[in-house]
Amino acid sequence: MAIPPVVIERLPLYARALAILDEQGRQVVSSQELGEMLSFSAAQIRKDLSYFGRFGKQGRGYNVQKLLDELRRILGLNRQWRMALVGIGRLGRAILGYEGFSPQGFRIVEAFDSSRQLIGQKVDGIVIRDTGELEGVLSKNPVDVGIVAVPAHEAQGVIDSLVRCGVRAILNYAPIAARTPRDVTVRRIDPVLALQGMTFYLKADAASAK
Amino acid sequence: MAIPPVVIERLPLYARALAILDEQGRQVVSSQELGEMLSFSAAQIRKDLSYFGRFGKQGRGYNVQKLLDELRRILGLNRQWRMALVGIGRLGRAILGYEGFSPQGFRIVEAFDSSRQLIGQKVDGIVIRDTGELEGVLSKNPVDVGIVAVPAHEAQGVIDSLVRCGVRAILNYAPIAARTPRDVTVRRIDPVLALQGMTFYLKADAASAK
Repeated sequence: MAIPPVVIERLPLYARALAILDEQGRQVVSSQELGEMLSFSAAQIRKDLSYFGRFGKQGRGYNVQKLLDELRRILGLNRQWRMALVGIGRLGRAILGYEGFSPQGFRIVEAFDSSRQLIGQKVDGIVIRDTGELEGVLSKNPVDVGIVAVPAHEAQGVIDSLVRCGVRAILNYAPIAARTPRDVTVRRIDPVLALQGMTFYLKADAASAK
Repeated sequence: MAIPPVVIERLPLYARALAILDEQGRQVVSSQELGEMLSFSAAQIRKDLSYFGRFGKQGRGYNVQKLLDELRRILGLNRQWRMALVGIGRLGRAILGYEGFSPQGFRIVEAFDSSRQLIGQKVDGIVIRDTGELEGVLSKNPVDVGIVAVPAHEAQGVIDSLVRCGVRAILNYAPIAARTPRDVTVRRIDPVLALQGMTFYLKADAASAK
């Protein structure tokens, strides 16, 4: 059974909510309560989790620890993932310094930029290397994930290089719809797209207020 | 007819692809070609756009200019949106300096932080004000959008303040599922969630390779 990508995208939210409950010592949680924590309907949660077998018992709720373990296993959250960051401008520096990655098992192990002034510098404990050497470096020391924080016109070339090095998961901060082979997953982080998806609702409100 | 949120989220991508075609002087585009530009199926594109009336003629494709104008109108892309940014740490500075907002009509007009050292400083042309003064400032000078780049434990309080000032669109960079009234739209920018949604596929591949 193929699991819809939108369901996969929600699973990390479930895992995060369950981890909070687990820390609080909670043993059981209902789909209603999980729904309230995440602003989803209880029906949505039951449907999403039904893709992964029967975690809950009718009327008794979900076993927090068991469901959390299972989601962590499904999502591969119980292991370490090596990442390479390309582009160490203002955004790249914020990404390098982001403290949310390593507690979740994501570690930036290589950083690349094409600026002469940056190459060889150490930022947040990582020596920045020449983007031109990316394929040589990553073919010797493979990474699981590539993070692309270069300007739009450089992004497709960088993504092609990452794919040639066997990277099959790319977090793309550049404002382009990347072209990749089918077995490569790309997630786009684009605040403008997120904003443009919200103004629709602001506009709708403005119209209805007339 | 209620338009599903996932469709709304894809419309800015269509607008962006059409703007590129328009700049190239293209007058007509097929759903196939739009699909190739965006890595969607042609059927998906026809279905999404069907929510907004009949833009295309059977077998003739879509009129680029007309469809672009219509999407811009639907999404409110032809006007200026005022934004307030809260949290001027490393991430907040990257957001303040992000050059992709203003060409798309999104302008940061107020910036807030609670650090004594930052209040009163000018960063990228904007004077940083005390987060404690947020409600006073925004009730006099309303904004359309709030951008939240504070640590997780401060985020809900900041979001509540923004909502009290009438902000109904929030871009949330903090790793929390914010609680807001129904008429407030929140989009979460969370690279860890995006990464965790990709490792599922890496894991699936690893398992199938055994």
